[in-house]
Amino acid sequence: MDQKRSIVSGEDRLIDRYFRPLVKHAGALGLFDDAASITPPDGHDLVLTVDASVAGIHFFPDDAADVVAKKALRVNLSDLAAKGARPLGALLSLSIPDSVTEDWLADFSRGLGEDLEGYGCPLMGGDTTRTRGSTTISITAVGVLPRGSMIKRSGAKAGDAIVVTGTIGDSALGLALRQRSGLKSFAGLSAEERQHLTDRYLLPQPRVELIEALRAAANAAIDISDGLVGDVAKVAAASGMAARIEAGSVPLSAAARAVVAAAPELLEAALTGGDDYEIAATVPQNRLAGLQEAARRAGIDVTTIGRIEPGNSVTVRGPDGLPMSLKQASFSHF
Amino acid sequence: MDQKRSIVSGEDRLIDRYFRPLVKHAGALGLFDDAASITPPDGHDLVLTVDASVAGIHFFPDDAADVVAKKALRVNLSDLAAKGARPLGALLSLSIPDSVTEDWLADFSRGLGEDLEGYGCPLMGGDTTRTRGSTTISITAVGVLPRGSMIKRSGAKAGDAIVVTGTIGDSALGLALRQRSGLKSFAGLSAEERQHLTDRYLLPQPRVELIEALRAAANAAIDISDGLVGDVAKVAAASGMAARIEAGSVPLSAAARAVVAAAPELLEAALTGGDDYEIAATVPQNRLAGLQEAARRAGIDVTTIGRIEPGNSVTVRGPDGLPMSLKQASFSHF
Repeated sequence: MDQKRSIVSGEDRLIDRYFRPLVKHAGALGLFDDAASITPPDGHDLVLTVDASVAGIHFFPDDAADVVAKKALRVNLSDLAAKGARPLGALLSLSIPDSVTEDWLADFSRGLGEDLEGYGCPLMGGDTTRTRGSTTISITAVGVLPRGSMIKRSGAKAGDAIVVTGTIGDSALGLALRQRSGLKSFAGLSAEERQHLTDRYLLPQPRVELIEALRAAANAAIDISDGLVGDVAKVAAASGMAARIEAGSVPLSAAARAVVAAAPELLEAALTGGDDYEIAATVPQNRLAGLQEAARRAGIDVTTIGRIEPGNSVTVRGPDGLPMSLKQASFSHF
Repeated sequence: MDQKRSIVSGEDRLIDRYFRPLVKHAGALGLFDDAASITPPDGHDLVLTVDASVAGIHFFPDDAADVVAKKALRVNLSDLAAKGARPLGALLSLSIPDSVTEDWLADFSRGLGEDLEGYGCPLMGGDTTRTRGSTTISITAVGVLPRGSMIKRSGAKAGDAIVVTGTIGDSALGLALRQRSGLKSFAGLSAEERQHLTDRYLLPQPRVELIEALRAAANAAIDISDGLVGDVAKVAAASGMAARIEAGSVPLSAAARAVVAAAPELLEAALTGGDDYEIAATVPQNRLAGLQEAARRAGIDVTTIGRIEPGNSVTVRGPDGLPMSLKQASFSHF
């Protein structure tokens, strides 16, 4: 349709310059083929997930390209981690408008390469196309785990503790800070606290250090992308259970605590805003200690925030002990 | 960033209405989870490929949504077929602007569902996001084949026949017809011939019927997406070989023959225009008969168009016996 032609294909040149250097996986054939082959280890399953990041929706067009690339990968690695799967490789589908510069591509490629290397997740293939619209990055991540051991949403059992990794709400507050930095609620924050919230929005930390421990302990899990309350509700619904969350137990960073102290109404944003990329899991009481021990070794907090119960509702009790009435349980782009 | 919120997540509603009904694969957990699990059959490899289709680049914004969905899937199945892999499943990453209607989504979902069913390629997962730009459909297809048997680009050997499935150039001429239907070159075409060319552009036919026969016969293969000459050049380059193509042997449909007879200069468009989604393979002479027999049974023409030779060039001899000088070997969107 929109035809620019050259003897040396422009797409091949882009791939040569920016993406072939990232390829370490033998099955990718150095991106010199149309497809990658994977020989799955005996007795294992593969786990597949795909997430798209779109300029103007999931990231700001002026965000640093290396950070954009890392986040686009990490949101997928977070999905894998919540399922108990180690990353095996990734495929990149990248659509870029003419306005994207070679500098942007170089930064994007560098950032992606750093994370592919850091997470042991080789690039196995991809597709690079033009668009007349927004930069769109769609990454398919492939994970691996022992056969039949994927942690599902649907496995929660009555009596399970609901636990979360790390701290909740930093990213939603970081986004609010970025969009409305003049708000009185943020006035008391130190420079470090502002930076903490902003960084947490820009660059999630998929909890790959806890993959094996979660697989050993969790009956159900989800990565928190759409908001803690809504994502726990998905686990409860898929499991045919009810969930009770104690808002006062939800772990907040010092920065988030400072914001909520200044503006208590922002607690709701923390609980429902999403983009946390922490893991919410349901864990039987007799496996909590094992998970806690592994978390200590990994230097990641794991905090009990509630309980799975028979029923079909999700209730959130506020720090005052009264049920919270939330305007919305989770985030949707639609 | 761009936040529309509701208690019932809009994305969940879209998935419920349009995509969950398409899911038949047990590992997809009915799209009720963040990831799909696959248990690969023993002794087999998985083959992964991803291709994006962008409105305004790969399809016309007013193309019928069911056909857009089918083409987006089929270009991936064509990649798998060229590698000798049977489809096992697909993941869909769909980014849609606000202008996309529910009717469009319903048609898209219906078309995709028909092809997923028809090709035995269940939907295993996906992601649906908004965009402020162009509709972008990125499909990751997963194929399966006996361990170590993927047909690579790099396996061509001196003496191999270069063969192609079906006919070449219909799609490029169909696109030209659509964009410049008033051209004198198209004046002599019947309504059926016009329809044939247009249809071939809109809806490729991945050659899944020849998957096993190609795996048994071919040393190397590629699906022809960027143009016959350029794609054969990629095979030659990856294999460290030269390729000689006889333009007079390249199979053309009756409609394409009529166009080229009226406008001989359009032969080049047929040879380099791309979007054929036929397979070019290199086959040792002693395996040609077996492939031909399988092709006859499948009702698909397989035609020898040239030969792999020692060296590192690609030459195309025109119907007049003289070397053709091509303005470009293949198509690139960049």
